[in-house]
Amino acid sequence: MREFWSQRARGLTPYVPGEQPRGERLIKLNTNESPYPPAPAALEAIRAAADGDLRLYPDPECTALREALAQAYGLKKEQVFAGNGSDEVLALCFQAFFDPGREILFAEVTYSFYPVFAQLYGLDYREVPLNDDFTLPLEPFLGGSGGIVVANPNAPTGLPLPLEQIRALLEGSPQAVVVVDEAYVDFGARSASELVGQYPNLVVTQTMSKSRALAGLRVGYALADENLIAALQCVKNSFNSYPLDRLAQAGALGALSQPEYLRQTAEKVTATRQRTAERLREMGFQVGNSAANFLFVTHPAVEAKALLDGLRARGILVRWWDRPRISSYLRISIGTDEEMDTLCAAVKELCSHEV
Amino acid sequence: MREFWSQRARGLTPYVPGEQPRGERLIKLNTNESPYPPAPAALEAIRAAADGDLRLYPDPECTALREALAQAYGLKKEQVFAGNGSDEVLALCFQAFFDPGREILFAEVTYSFYPVFAQLYGLDYREVPLNDDFTLPLEPFLGGSGGIVVANPNAPTGLPLPLEQIRALLEGSPQAVVVVDEAYVDFGARSASELVGQYPNLVVTQTMSKSRALAGLRVGYALADENLIAALQCVKNSFNSYPLDRLAQAGALGALSQPEYLRQTAEKVTATRQRTAERLREMGFQVGNSAANFLFVTHPAVEAKALLDGLRARGILVRWWDRPRISSYLRISIGTDEEMDTLCAAVKELCSHEV
Repeated sequence: MREFWSQRARGLTPYVPGEQPRGERLIKLNTNESPYPPAPAALEAIRAAADGDLRLYPDPECTALREALAQAYGLKKEQVFAGNGSDEVLALCFQAFFDPGREILFAEVTYSFYPVFAQLYGLDYREVPLNDDFTLPLEPFLGGSGGIVVANPNAPTGLPLPLEQIRALLEGSPQAVVVVDEAYVDFGARSASELVGQYPNLVVTQTMSKSRALAGLRVGYALADENLIAALQCVKNSFNSYPLDRLAQAGALGALSQPEYLRQTAEKVTATRQRTAERLREMGFQVGNSAANFLFVTHPAVEAKALLDGLRARGILVRWWDRPRISSYLRISIGTDEEMDTLCAAVKELCSHEV
Repeated sequence: MREFWSQRARGLTPYVPGEQPRGERLIKLNTNESPYPPAPAALEAIRAAADGDLRLYPDPECTALREALAQAYGLKKEQVFAGNGSDEVLALCFQAFFDPGREILFAEVTYSFYPVFAQLYGLDYREVPLNDDFTLPLEPFLGGSGGIVVANPNAPTGLPLPLEQIRALLEGSPQAVVVVDEAYVDFGARSASELVGQYPNLVVTQTMSKSRALAGLRVGYALADENLIAALQCVKNSFNSYPLDRLAQAGALGALSQPEYLRQTAEKVTATRQRTAERLREMGFQVGNSAANFLFVTHPAVEAKALLDGLRARGILVRWWDRPRISSYLRISIGTDEEMDTLCAAVKELCSHEV
């Protein structure tokens, strides 16, 4: 029926996140969460902030958090923006930097929220086909003036983009804002944050949901020149003065105080990724060289959808998309070694049925 | 300079929230926070949720919270939407229900975020002048088809809108969605939530920031027919799958489990409001009949701006706007009895200087 819906709302095809089961005991390898808990200092900071001061609004400018992020990345507070998860930060980027009638470019196979943001804000976009090996072709992006969004590493492929290629994008499209979405960067790619200050058109977004194991807290941020951060602040302050609650600001600060914990858990995840990739390859899977906390895999003889369903029946969630070019692939988040052992055993059993 | 800013961002005049002082010890009567702490069950629920599960995404549908809100208001879960503060909920309403080219109507003196939302989403609006006594004239709103937004009680005046007038708006503009922003309703106005189910064009928004003393947690919600809630979900899922973090969902659920605490603290606030209003009237102030947790006051002989500055110098924050019709008024949030005693003493002293 949709009576009373705006034209905008009627035209939307929302993003569909991976399943978040309630109450069931499942092995959850479908939304790229960390298998390890957040840094102890994050949990302590949250508990300490759960007091009577919750009656007061949070700092709308997230001053302390932005200062801590600035310090962590060798930047100034004015070069840092904080938001309610990197999805919100990305949505604000689409509003702050892109205009209707000027095509935004992103890969055909990438984070599927990008076209949804474009739809929501009435923006034009063009999806650039990836090369056959899922690497990003640079040529089609150069000279664009409407804006560029790339994920590094890319999702769901996990493939990293070398820093030289980010530079090439920035220099090849000096009139366009280039958003580098680094949700998974801590698992093996090189961050473009070191280029902030060198390129006035660069925005790097990151999240605390993955390597910092705080998906439940919703904290994302952007690193960019002061001028671009001011645009994000302007849009944010026209939408929601206080997007980050007191607990999220406190918890994120706590997490930042223990960088060693991030390094250790990221190393554990990459070791497990390596081990899992080897075992899947032994079973005949093609496994890309992921720099993220997931693997993107396909088997020449076994249907991805059959594996998805078979794993689900065994209490293991992974991710599959019914979309061109990737419908024969599964994306499998990296869990603990034990979880990946269970996954590999289940996959082996399913493959023996199917082949 | 604003190089790289979108046209949209260049055209924005952001909302300016009240000051949130960091580190200073001030009496904060400027942003309508509760002077009392949140319900104990809210804080306990947050502490319990500050565990390793924060590595996992929150429930994107806020199922348990929406079920609890539905129960509290005698509705179904499908008639409830939850968001990251009622500002976000209102912003999503503007996107879900209003179209460019069809004028949205709201009062000339009301929550000053409404025109900002309209600007951000490229929507047309008309500000309807209030009557001389700041009451809302119904006539100019009737027959509108682009949408209506009213705050009940209104801000910053505090004046309530009788339920019959809400009905008249709903019946007089059956083609328009009518958003009733009830941020302050628990302090003395009658909620239109009882009309949900009777009018397909009604949306009621509320917040946990005021009467539930959880401004620091960012939880707002909308109550409406299933069809309108579906539109909000559609827009939300095109913007941010997970706007409410795990701690906010847990804390809000905790707060809802202690309705008696809400009633008691709201009663304390209204008693203090009554007492403060009387004392200010004795000092010669005109004080409107507020149904909110603030007073909107003016003195025939003392400049509001002089009072604002004088109170600030004495460590007391109140709110003043340099805007037509209301620049001779102050909005004073209701604090504890002790805080209001300090305020009244300071005001008395300032008035004796000025008169």
